[in-house]
Amino acid sequence: MARAHNFFAGPAVLPLSVLEETRDAIMDFAGNGVSIMEISHRDKAFDKVVAEAQADTLAIMGLSADEYSVIFLGGGASLQFAMVPLNFLHKKADYVNTGAWASKAIKEAKLIGEVAEVASSKATNFNQLPKNIKYSGDADYVHITTNNTIFGTQWKSDPDVGNVPLIADMSSDMLSMKRDFKKYNLIYAGAQKNLGPAGVAIVIIKKAWMEAKAKQSISTILQYKTHVDAGSMYNTPPCVSVFVVGKTLKWIIKEGGLEAVQARNQKKAKIIYDIFDAYPEFYKGSVVNKEDRSLMNVTWNLPTPELEEKFIAEAKAKKMLGLKGHRSVGGMRASIYNACPMESVELLAKHMEEFYKANK
Amino acid sequence: MARAHNFFAGPAVLPLSVLEETRDAIMDFAGNGVSIMEISHRDKAFDKVVAEAQADTLAIMGLSADEYSVIFLGGGASLQFAMVPLNFLHKKADYVNTGAWASKAIKEAKLIGEVAEVASSKATNFNQLPKNIKYSGDADYVHITTNNTIFGTQWKSDPDVGNVPLIADMSSDMLSMKRDFKKYNLIYAGAQKNLGPAGVAIVIIKKAWMEAKAKQSISTILQYKTHVDAGSMYNTPPCVSVFVVGKTLKWIIKEGGLEAVQARNQKKAKIIYDIFDAYPEFYKGSVVNKEDRSLMNVTWNLPTPELEEKFIAEAKAKKMLGLKGHRSVGGMRASIYNACPMESVELLAKHMEEFYKANK
Repeated sequence: MARAHNFFAGPAVLPLSVLEETRDAIMDFAGNGVSIMEISHRDKAFDKVVAEAQADTLAIMGLSADEYSVIFLGGGASLQFAMVPLNFLHKKADYVNTGAWASKAIKEAKLIGEVAEVASSKATNFNQLPKNIKYSGDADYVHITTNNTIFGTQWKSDPDVGNVPLIADMSSDMLSMKRDFKKYNLIYAGAQKNLGPAGVAIVIIKKAWMEAKAKQSISTILQYKTHVDAGSMYNTPPCVSVFVVGKTLKWIIKEGGLEAVQARNQKKAKIIYDIFDAYPEFYKGSVVNKEDRSLMNVTWNLPTPELEEKFIAEAKAKKMLGLKGHRSVGGMRASIYNACPMESVELLAKHMEEFYKANK
Repeated sequence: MARAHNFFAGPAVLPLSVLEETRDAIMDFAGNGVSIMEISHRDKAFDKVVAEAQADTLAIMGLSADEYSVIFLGGGASLQFAMVPLNFLHKKADYVNTGAWASKAIKEAKLIGEVAEVASSKATNFNQLPKNIKYSGDADYVHITTNNTIFGTQWKSDPDVGNVPLIADMSSDMLSMKRDFKKYNLIYAGAQKNLGPAGVAIVIIKKAWMEAKAKQSISTILQYKTHVDAGSMYNTPPCVSVFVVGKTLKWIIKEGGLEAVQARNQKKAKIIYDIFDAYPEFYKGSVVNKEDRSLMNVTWNLPTPELEEKFIAEAKAKKMLGLKGHRSVGGMRASIYNACPMESVELLAKHMEEFYKANK
């Protein structure tokens, strides 16, 4: 079966080499006649998978193991929406509302304590990122969402929030570009966009801050400290998902790290955005400011819903999948994560050109 | 690579046919050129995976979809230790303490409310199940652990707790024998013993009770109602793990359902326990009452730690893996879950006979 051109928003395309390594490990992991699905998480061969994934994550991000811990947790980013305030919201937290996922994070924080929604682009249906944000200054933390999967906006630089701890949901642009990761006290991401299959979230946390500030009265499994202290092995981790993340991290390193990955992501995104700019009345990008355009999720509308349906159907006939916008906003979306090949983007661009000529 | 004889306690052996189906789906799921790791959880082909796994679970258990819901959650059984009291412990809950996992469940419940530890075999290091238990009668629920992975005991019948809702952690004997499942209001199990890889817990919950009793003030993702209302798709589920569970459920049905599975499990366990009974001074089963002996985890000691090491090393040379007892108790353990082939058990028995003759 030939590979499809996969534009799903998540779960999403992974490197072919990672699929092949996973396929092999499903039948035999580490040459011992046992599947990666069947091996004890206490086995030394699996320990190595976790330890290497932790070390590779820090190496890619340029962070020190003395300062940061990496843990792999089940439950997805949605569990992190709850765990962040459960652990760290003592009095008040600042949240920047840039989309549906940020709104969900805010909803969970409000169950725990006071939330200052310091900026929001909700009034314009999240078609831009808020500018000139005034943070409270005395919050327990500031929470941002670096890439907004549904609306197609992305923070291209990392905010200055002074001495207040900065926390980011990086689910949909994790390890897709260089960032000043040292600015963050806690970074989390569901793996199923840039890093692996669904079923695991990666959390990078500043240890000293966690020790000083995390609540220890909440359920054991909901405490970051539990997982950090146990080296991410407090309970059985989602082993296969961690294995795949580990292989994807090695793929990122082999590709040249974040600098190389970012350059390719910029090139891929430019191919599509250039078409928006060439035919702005036909391909109506949903993000109003060019600097906010996501390198990961490109969102747009066509002049009519009928044309959108036709566009998607014709793309599907060419094996391009997942181009329908999120059900909450409609329109179209191409998710072009790290592992999305240049050829898929070029094929989409060709389809856009041809479709424009045939339907303008 | 020849298959090993896998006696790991979890993650554990899975049916070879399930490994092969998973291997194929890792490269191409549903014939569309996309991996099971890469397909949107909102895609119709994946919807079908979830819907069939839910229906097959209920069919195997003889439960009605009108009365019970099946949901698949990340975070393992350890997250359920917290979710059960967070949702249902209003005033007081009864817990039966039969081992390390039951103790952990109790610890989490105590963070939320009053716990009546109505029975415990802790004083004898959990080498038996408590008998003639007096339940409180007015508790919010009674919690039991049907199989104790570390200590090798198993509830062979389902307790009568009157009108008090019964909740069970069935992680290590889920769908391995017939039970009166209708007696339970909530059943949960980490998949990584009888049902699939680590990374997903299956929860079967009585809907009317949940609607009436579950707290709705806690974090959204920690509410069972959230997941039931969303058909187990509130957030991205651990898709690959759910896929594998689905295939394993179909394997159970094909094998003849719980009656056939149980008969084979009894036959397998008898092969090992018969050796304990033949050489009781050499193979010292750690469970004192025969009726408490687990069909899933068979635990024993040899006369000396040196003999135990030798036994394990010689078994490993014959490709028998995972025979070391849990690090908290030592000794030996053979986990012989549903998918453990008869040949593996026969080979272990042969090794035990030979080892006895050579070392008695």
